Amino acid sequence: MRTSRLLQLRGVLHTRSSCRGNSVLSQEPSGPKMQTQIPGPKSKQFMHDLEKTQNALSTIFVLDVEKSIGNYAVDIDGNIMLDVYEQIASLALGYNHPAIQKVFQNPANLSQLVNRPALGVHPTPQFIKQINETLLPIAPKGLEHVQPMMCGSCSNENAFKAMCIWHANKHRDGKAFSEEELKSSMHNKSPGCPTVSIMSFEGGFHGRTFGALACTHSKPIHKLDIPSFDWPAAPFPRYKYPLEENQRENAKEDERCLARVEELFHAYKSKNNPVVGVVVEPIQSEGGDFHGSPAFFQRLQKITKQNDAALLIDEVQTGLGATGKFWAHEHFNLPESPDIVTFSKKFQTGGYFAKAEYQPKQPYRIFNTWMGEPAKMLVLDAVLKTVKQENLIESTRKTGDVLLAGLKDLSKRYPQLILNTRGRGTFCAFDMTNASVRDKYLVQMRNAGIQMGACGDIAVRFRPALVFTEKHANIVLDKMNEVAKSF
Amino acid sequence: MRTSRLLQLRGVLHTRSSCRGNSVLSQEPSGPKMQTQIPGPKSKQFMHDLEKTQNALSTIFVLDVEKSIGNYAVDIDGNIMLDVYEQIASLALGYNHPAIQKVFQNPANLSQLVNRPALGVHPTPQFIKQINETLLPIAPKGLEHVQPMMCGSCSNENAFKAMCIWHANKHRDGKAFSEEELKSSMHNKSPGCPTVSIMSFEGGFHGRTFGALACTHSKPIHKLDIPSFDWPAAPFPRYKYPLEENQRENAKEDERCLARVEELFHAYKSKNNPVVGVVVEPIQSEGGDFHGSPAFFQRLQKITKQNDAALLIDEVQTGLGATGKFWAHEHFNLPESPDIVTFSKKFQTGGYFAKAEYQPKQPYRIFNTWMGEPAKMLVLDAVLKTVKQENLIESTRKTGDVLLAGLKDLSKRYPQLILNTRGRGTFCAFDMTNASVRDKYLVQMRNAGIQMGACGDIAVRFRPALVFTEKHANIVLDKMNEVAKSF
Repeated sequence: MRTSRLLQLRGVLHTRSSCRGNSVLSQEPSGPKMQTQIPGPKSKQFMHDLEKTQNALSTIFVLDVEKSIGNYAVDIDGNIMLDVYEQIASLALGYNHPAIQKVFQNPANLSQLVNRPALGVHPTPQFIKQINETLLPIAPKGLEHVQPMMCGSCSNENAFKAMCIWHANKHRDGKAFSEEELKSSMHNKSPGCPTVSIMSFEGGFHGRTFGALACTHSKPIHKLDIPSFDWPAAPFPRYKYPLEENQRENAKEDERCLARVEELFHAYKSKNNPVVGVVVEPIQSEGGDFHGSPAFFQRLQKITKQNDAALLIDEVQTGLGATGKFWAHEHFNLPESPDIVTFSKKFQTGGYFAKAEYQPKQPYRIFNTWMGEPAKMLVLDAVLKTVKQENLIESTRKTGDVLLAGLKDLSKRYPQLILNTRGRGTFCAFDMTNASVRDKYLVQMRNAGIQMGACGDIAVRFRPALVFTEKHANIVLDKMNEVAKSF
Repeated sequence: MRTSRLLQLRGVLHTRSSCRGNSVLSQEPSGPKMQTQIPGPKSKQFMHDLEKTQNALSTIFVLDVEKSIGNYAVDIDGNIMLDVYEQIASLALGYNHPAIQKVFQNPANLSQLVNRPALGVHPTPQFIKQINETLLPIAPKGLEHVQPMMCGSCSNENAFKAMCIWHANKHRDGKAFSEEELKSSMHNKSPGCPTVSIMSFEGGFHGRTFGALACTHSKPIHKLDIPSFDWPAAPFPRYKYPLEENQRENAKEDERCLARVEELFHAYKSKNNPVVGVVVEPIQSEGGDFHGSPAFFQRLQKITKQNDAALLIDEVQTGLGATGKFWAHEHFNLPESPDIVTFSKKFQTGGYFAKAEYQPKQPYRIFNTWMGEPAKMLVLDAVLKTVKQENLIESTRKTGDVLLAGLKDLSKRYPQLILNTRGRGTFCAFDMTNASVRDKYLVQMRNAGIQMGACGDIAVRFRPALVFTEKHANIVLDKMNEVAKSF
């Protein structure tokens, strides 16, 4: 009895250094526990320090990485928050997971951690093995080529380039580059640097570097004052909820968006700026958690193909299980695989999977100094093994059902406050009345011990780790209820 | 005697796991030792494997990271090569340096290695300390703001954005964004996304993502088929060597280039595409190791300022000591500091230093999920401490003198083969008669145990680590002589 009581305490207590098993959950505290308002006085002091060298206005609190564990983020003031945002959706296994600790504790990994190679010229046997044994097994069906990269933006930028090169290659019809192409390219001019475009969607987000930003349309503040490309943006469906009561109207919304996609293909072809590829998120995330139906994506793929363009699905935020499937686009039953799929965030590194035809024939066209990173692949391998061993995608699907049912229930109780509940897996969201209500609600939730994320103008998004369980969902739902009551 | 003999053997022998001191040199082999041609049969097998999933035509050999040590890269076939290219100039301390090993072996670092935070929203106290105590002490004079990033391309892309925002902000004169700006930005249109440009130089290299690529003009293969911006590229000096015999002509070359810079400023202003910033490498590296004189850079800074534009010096390849100064632009005695300086490669992470006025006033304008990485800052801190403790910049300057003198000597002996020797510190280069001779020479050097890098059409570049000493320089010079003899 004493032993079991001790073990129980040990589970409740925060035991950082224990690595005797992969279960990070046994090390978690029993629930959130707040000491101060967020940000607390110590966070404020550090934020003040940070402001001396950079714009720190986006800082929410200063993180205590040593004390954070599993689903719980601990800040430097000792506040313990249940974190359903997980570093902008980028931690697959939560904080301080033993499986990832072991990567860094294993002396056999030391050389891979210490020496960051230029993989494009000097790959390592370990990295080649990682490509084959870590990346390939998770490749979307039919996409057998993989290009490792570093972050979401550079994954998208390089996937855009791969689409442009694929398009030009097809139309060059096996011919060598012309003298005119070679010369004009060095001055950013056509035909070497042709006028071609990538279609994206209003409300979409694909990153903030110049190419990615030209396809990002979530908020003006990301784009203002930065020159861009004349690339078309089509509307992305804005459904009425609940879906089951608005089927006819939502099907019409799909029609409207797809009709505009077709129009834009034709319009940009007419003005000699043909669309070579379409980039789309399976769920528009940063833009406000907007969903498209399987029918929408199926027809988008068909239209894209008819127009001689490539379909790139950006799974930077959706990939690796949070929607209840490994890749979110698996929910769409596409007749064939998309042409390219980009990934990052939970993968801790970036890259893209592609059909063989999207691989340039010449070297150095998709290239940079690092081309990925072996150290990150070690982490990814540990993540993927844990996801498999602990069946975390299946459990995320089940937890998601509980979470979404709970949100729907709250929406019924607070119909003036919590609207349009939606989601796949734990990748859930709801809208609030307006931005100021939403922002106020998030602050109060945070002060009640739940760290959530905003997206779009009025939405709240859930991006918990894959170790988020029904128990955690219930803690969040209870707190949501408490805070909603006070509104 | 026995002990000393054993110790000597130990120095010659490759002792990977020894960490009893920071001197990586004591663990090095006594010289290159080749077993096969490059790539050897095992490398070829791995390259064949790699080709199944990606274009592997840029692969030179497959690296054995466990056996590589100090200045010596060992490949998977057991070939020991003296490496003067060091993973495209990205390893400051060579392979398996004990100081970097300790970063990963220190249990106190574990949480920082395991948990990659979204630093823009949840920085850690350790990261804020690293900014203040690791990054700020190396800031170019007058650049007290620092924006951590991840790689060279995203550092440049974000520095470009900072220049565009700075320019717009100045002309907005404190006014809020207009309704028209907000709306038009969401469709990539002016005035929200204005037509403004960044001037770069012919032969320059700043990365391969869309914005960076628009400023890259080193080789057509990087740019072909990728849409670009109408941004101006000015000529960068192409000097006659030896410099001391061609002073008048080279001064004229500066004039020619700077006159064109001024012309382009005016031309792009006239066509309502004003230049908001100029990006330049202190030494054009990828493009062929072309140098500009201090006078060129001083006048470039003056002209840029007169034209209401920002001067960004891209030190991604030159930063961190290889030229014999911490920042290469310190060689130019600029009357004031440049406005922005970007860094990456040897830093193992990226970012930029900037004057305070280049920091956007609003959050989320320079932002991404990761915004740098604490794990990499731990490595950088170890690198910088080692550089200081072992006085590596001073020793690099001295080694560089020996190397350059040796190259000049070889150039006299082989005036038909080794031309235009030039360099600062160990950041040295020479030209060869043509590309096919250069490529053949590099292959033979590699097979003789010296791994060097090509750049531009006909150049060979030296990019050794900072632990490259006179002893290593002499090994390289001797092999260069041997191989040159056979031509």
